[in-house]
Amino acid sequence: MKLLEDRIREEGVVKDGDVLKVDMFLNHQMDVALFREMAKEWKRLFDGEGVNKILTIEASGIGIACIAAEEFGCKVVFAKKTQGKNLDGELLTTQITSFTKGRVFDVIVAKKFLGPEDRVLIIDDFLANGCALEGLISIVRDSGATLVGCGIAVEKGFQVGGKKIRDMGVHLESLAIVDKMNADGSITFRQ
Amino acid sequence: MKLLEDRIREEGVVKDGDVLKVDMFLNHQMDVALFREMAKEWKRLFDGEGVNKILTIEASGIGIACIAAEEFGCKVVFAKKTQGKNLDGELLTTQITSFTKGRVFDVIVAKKFLGPEDRVLIIDDFLANGCALEGLISIVRDSGATLVGCGIAVEKGFQVGGKKIRDMGVHLESLAIVDKMNADGSITFRQ
Repeated sequence: MKLLEDRIREEGVVKDGDVLKVDMFLNHQMDVALFREMAKEWKRLFDGEGVNKILTIEASGIGIACIAAEEFGCKVVFAKKTQGKNLDGELLTTQITSFTKGRVFDVIVAKKFLGPEDRVLIIDDFLANGCALEGLISIVRDSGATLVGCGIAVEKGFQVGGKKIRDMGVHLESLAIVDKMNADGSITFRQ
Repeated sequence: MKLLEDRIREEGVVKDGDVLKVDMFLNHQMDVALFREMAKEWKRLFDGEGVNKILTIEASGIGIACIAAEEFGCKVVFAKKTQGKNLDGELLTTQITSFTKGRVFDVIVAKKFLGPEDRVLIIDDFLANGCALEGLISIVRDSGATLVGCGIAVEKGFQVGGKKIRDMGVHLESLAIVDKMNADGSITFRQ
């Protein structure tokens, strides 16, 4: 998606250790006008697939998921990374490793929010090694819901996540795929 | 706001320890059609105040903040509860105590996202003891930005937060104020 690639080129910052900071518009400050265009693109890419629930994971997936949900006319469920006092009842759980945060999270969704009647689109901001997405996919499968696919904002195409998820046969649509972050700070996108 | 009060009556669950669960539509599953109506109401209540930035805190404030930001035509910044590897540069920081999670969080916003040119509306899902909101207010003040006010979805009127914030002279608008959660599970809203 050219609009997103342009924003990454203009406002993204390449840091040591293959870190790409997009906190100007995606995951700390959030540009909801851009989110609306991204949402329309996911709607186009998954149109006619009967999506009736969007699943994401806290925290930075929530904004894009909510805007996307308006396009699909459905509700959002966000997976929680720790079990708070207010979360009880039957739970769908998995574990994911966050390399950014350097630790393992328990990830939880209340069972009552995902079931066989749901056709689920997973939305998240980043796809790198794919651990978070694999966790969300396993939650969808455990729930008995149908996984329609995954919509990602920024995929790091030089990490294994995208290949892993596509090799599982999942319909994955990343709006921008970064194939290379160059020493001069420029970014090469997949065509 | 009658629409929100009705949803709390219909789908809210009163639990021991003055806990009100609204996870069906507000903070685990998220009903974005309801969020749109809430956003319009905040827009009406803060219209003409020149809001050009919305500040919220992860995780459950993000969805309502993003939908509200479209009404105001501005960006969202969400405060983060811990310092990840990807957050660097100069930071605005404070600490808040979460009674729900039973611990103290460092709360962080990158300085570059809030400054004297900003007229900030703080949006959050819940107001109880007011610790989170006080933390966000102190971040706005430290940044040099102007605090326009605070828009809350559900205020627990029997806890001290709302009074504390209003006594500070802050323009606080809660869309539903729960004055009492009764033993039979019914809820009394402030008129």
